[in-house]
Amino acid sequence: MIQETIVSTQNKNGIVHIAPMGIHISADEFIILPFKPSTTLDNLLETNVAVLNYCTDVRVFAGCLTGRRDWPVKDAERIDGKVLSCALAHTEVKVLRIEDDELRPKLYCQAVHTVNHAPFTGFNRAQYAVLEAAILVSRLHMLPIEKLDAELTYLQIGIDKTAGAHEFEAWGWLMTVVDNYKATLNL
Amino acid sequence: MIQETIVSTQNKNGIVHIAPMGIHISADEFIILPFKPSTTLDNLLETNVAVLNYCTDVRVFAGCLTGRRDWPVKDAERIDGKVLSCALAHTEVKVLRIEDDELRPKLYCQAVHTVNHAPFTGFNRAQYAVLEAAILVSRLHMLPIEKLDAELTYLQIGIDKTAGAHEFEAWGWLMTVVDNYKATLNL
Repeated sequence: MIQETIVSTQNKNGIVHIAPMGIHISADEFIILPFKPSTTLDNLLETNVAVLNYCTDVRVFAGCLTGRRDWPVKDAERIDGKVLSCALAHTEVKVLRIEDDELRPKLYCQAVHTVNHAPFTGFNRAQYAVLEAAILVSRLHMLPIEKLDAELTYLQIGIDKTAGAHEFEAWGWLMTVVDNYKATLNL
Repeated sequence: MIQETIVSTQNKNGIVHIAPMGIHISADEFIILPFKPSTTLDNLLETNVAVLNYCTDVRVFAGCLTGRRDWPVKDAERIDGKVLSCALAHTEVKVLRIEDDELRPKLYCQAVHTVNHAPFTGFNRAQYAVLEAAILVSRLHMLPIEKLDAELTYLQIGIDKTAGAHEFEAWGWLMTVVDNYKATLNL
């Protein structure tokens, strides 16, 4: 099972980095698969810990893909790390072992501590649409334009029907990237 | 903004009814829009209260559409109602006023009490795929088969990539309904 989270790490100088990542859940283990090279991987190798932030504010997901990485954080409770202030809950993890790979090493982690900050308030289809659109935007140059357009048209339905202010804002950031990309192709 | 929740109500004899519903959030109000006629509407008119259950166990959503409505519940805390045991959080509401309509009256509600039971653990694309497929299944007879197939093919990607056991089970229930429906059309 894969949970879409925001992973926060820091280097040994305490510089925080956040990145949206799909975490693989396997029994009691959390498997983080950062790309090589990446700041998340560097930080995990340096400090051995991370925070998995469980956020429904999709602006963080869309923001990380559109140059907006400066989201408020607070101290983690049991590890030397940072928690996103908007997280509904978070899990502090430490790396148990690493399975190396040329592209995406597997970092098997164990939960140290989980905190439940605020209630989940139900699924929102627009949040899912933003998440899927963010994944498309992260792969823009690999996608046929027809597929991109078809999927965005489908996802737009969920935005139009169910979005709140945060979802509209996040969607707008992503669509600006898509529009700029299309402009470079003279479409 | 619309939140997809499971609404639990009961009649004056305490018979519980649960139904997946998109709740409209407007400032501090929750607007429930049950179809006319429906058990949820009857119960709300009889007792004036409901519980909005915030669940990520998508088997409840798929189950309500496929004849599996018997999910464990426990007593609400401040109203005479029932809470789904699997809810990560819930809000107990009372009806403030009703805006009648031939098809879907609007029941404006106020939160009486919210309880945070368990941490949200991140978005899961398969959960949303089940939710979207459940919406398609609820409208089967209104959909062109080509549209149905195209959307299910798209949603299947999220299932294959990110589902856990609950999501696979819920998806299977829905696909059985789709297959049976197609069989009646001799497709």
